[in-house]
Amino acid sequence: MKLDIAVLSGDGIGPEVTAQAIKALEAVAHSFDHTFIFKDALVGAIAIDKTGNPLPEETLQLCVDTDAVLFGAIGDPKYDNNPSAPVRPEQGLLKLRKELGLYANIRPVKAYDTLIDKSPLKPEIITGTDISIYRELTGGIYFGKKELNDEGTVASDLCEYSKEEIERITHLAFKAAQKRRNKLTLVDKANVLESSRLWRKVVTEVAKTYPDVALDFLFVDNAAMQMILNPSQFDVILTENMFGDIISDEASVIGGSIGLLASASVGDTCCMFEPIHGSYPQATGKGIANPIAAILSAAMLLEHFDLLGEANAIRDAVEKALELNLTTPDLNKVNPLTTEKVGDFIADYI
Amino acid sequence: MKLDIAVLSGDGIGPEVTAQAIKALEAVAHSFDHTFIFKDALVGAIAIDKTGNPLPEETLQLCVDTDAVLFGAIGDPKYDNNPSAPVRPEQGLLKLRKELGLYANIRPVKAYDTLIDKSPLKPEIITGTDISIYRELTGGIYFGKKELNDEGTVASDLCEYSKEEIERITHLAFKAAQKRRNKLTLVDKANVLESSRLWRKVVTEVAKTYPDVALDFLFVDNAAMQMILNPSQFDVILTENMFGDIISDEASVIGGSIGLLASASVGDTCCMFEPIHGSYPQATGKGIANPIAAILSAAMLLEHFDLLGEANAIRDAVEKALELNLTTPDLNKVNPLTTEKVGDFIADYI
Ligand SMILES: CC(C)[C@H](C(=O)O)[C@@H](O)C(=O)O
Ligand SMILES: CC(C)[C@H](C(=O)O)[C@@H](O)C(=O)O
Repeated sequence: MKLDIAVLSGDGIGPEVTAQAIKALEAVAHSFDHTFIFKDALVGAIAIDKTGNPLPEETLQLCVDTDAVLFGAIGDPKYDNNPSAPVRPEQGLLKLRKELGLYANIRPVKAYDTLIDKSPLKPEIITGTDISIYRELTGGIYFGKKELNDEGTVASDLCEYSKEEIERITHLAFKAAQKRRNKLTLVDKANVLESSRLWRKVVTEVAKTYPDVALDFLFVDNAAMQMILNPSQFDVILTENMFGDIISDEASVIGGSIGLLASASVGDTCCMFEPIHGSYPQATGKGIANPIAAILSAAMLLEHFDLLGEANAIRDAVEKALELNLTTPDLNKVNPLTTEKVGDFIADYI
Repeated sequence: MKLDIAVLSGDGIGPEVTAQAIKALEAVAHSFDHTFIFKDALVGAIAIDKTGNPLPEETLQLCVDTDAVLFGAIGDPKYDNNPSAPVRPEQGLLKLRKELGLYANIRPVKAYDTLIDKSPLKPEIITGTDISIYRELTGGIYFGKKELNDEGTVASDLCEYSKEEIERITHLAFKAAQKRRNKLTLVDKANVLESSRLWRKVVTEVAKTYPDVALDFLFVDNAAMQMILNPSQFDVILTENMFGDIISDEASVIGGSIGLLASASVGDTCCMFEPIHGSYPQATGKGIANPIAAILSAAMLLEHFDLLGEANAIRDAVEKALELNLTTPDLNKVNPLTTEKVGDFIADYI
């Protein structure tokens, strides 16, 4: 297979970890006889610094023209403490999601046996946890009308959803549940929000097409508790944009290291893969950033194109690295490897 | 002191646990020579069953006329699975908050040493946790305009905040921080929401009046992680209505038992005290419901009226019950006491 891949490595540790993901993909291309062509483009704070725009036109165009986007991380302390600044790296990310139509953000959350002691939760709580979170990514309060009155004393954000927006991600989530343990939990706040009631109605309707999947509902406040009390009860979680942001970040602590968590953002025509961690500016250039989340994002990319054997080759290599404790300082205090050396091991193993 | 107290014990286990809170208050009245007069009123599913209205006019009027409201719990399975039903118990609660102007919901979260092993989190993570969450309770997306188009295909909820709404709870939160460890964390999503940017602006402004309190900011997704990774970093948390709903329920798992957590909802003229647990219908009438959350809510009531010695008398009695393991089955599997017996012990000890 031939794939054109846009590489938006972004800020902070983004470039370092993305480089390791590319190395893993190149190893896969070599072993499985594929052709992956990588094309770099600017995004985030570095794009603001160089062009004044967190998402330059050329970058967007490149993403549209390629088969997939490999994303690093964005964010720089000089913008972080000023959410009112007129231009911010996040705007680039939100615009990218919207323009590419990446309406479903998929985040696997797994408790690795080898890492079970690193979790803030007790081992007996997290054992067996294997969740796939489907977060709606281009609607809701993120993209609804925002208003601030002239005096700057009243501000508002509109959370709006249409049937179509809900349906398309719901189908993806049900299909995923069918390939997993046939359970789907909708997280909403239908006892308070009109938009959540629409989610329940539409999801209940779509569920009829997937009679083999058990559907249940959880209010978001209860979900935030259940995620900690009993995470292994979940299979696929489906939720709207803002609840998904909160619940998936909460879930990310279960595994014991945010440095392992990958994500895919998909739409009807484009797809993007990124580690869920941020740009971690304090670590930039030190060789201490964990590249595994970026590398597992590359595995999600392969899976998206139905290259399942190839994706598993990456995952096996990652599990081996974890098993042998060939990891960065976040997971290995005694004898850590650098970002690059972890990447080398994984690429070699593939 | 003489206090008129409206008792809205509600549904499920509400009446059982509220009865124990009253017993504790009566013990306090006796020991400290106060007069507390209790007046019952209907709320929730039971009010719908008897009057068709989850918050009958007489109940509301009684709450306005008394000094404080002691609230049990609301909710019944026959309404739970149907958030689109025209009349639901939750509406009574939301209306009560709005009509009584209870704009600040205060939830203490503490890791009790005696219960440290009951938590899903590791002891070393939770030791020393002592948080006070200030959640805005009468604004935001809960009370903003809700719309559903005629075809039932587009739904929306408006999240709106004014400077005044933010200011009044912010002052309460800063004052609380001054009596605690002088730290306040605003939880928001200012990188995405206009309303969150107004929160940051207003809170930053108000902070100037409290120079002895250190203010910091956390995005809600990060807060959901930090609450599990390192809860003892927090002192006072201030946040808007929906984020507060999620974050405070998440935080409630830290202590190991939701059956211990109390809350106060206060405004300029009224105040209400309630356990944070729900109506737990499966447990109704079995004598297994933990009354401590309701009893600690009574302690918060006393504290609100500056009866600090009295509040501490209740808290000491609760700590003693926990220490001697004189508790309900949720905390004591081997030799549990009934709801009533726990209440008796605490009242006697006072
Ligand atoms: C950076 C921010 C706008 C973004 C979001 O809230 O979606 C991030 O938290 C994420 O989850 O990818
Ligand atoms: C019952 C529900 C409307 C309520 C809320 O969301 O405020 C509850 O979850 C709470 O936190 O008191």
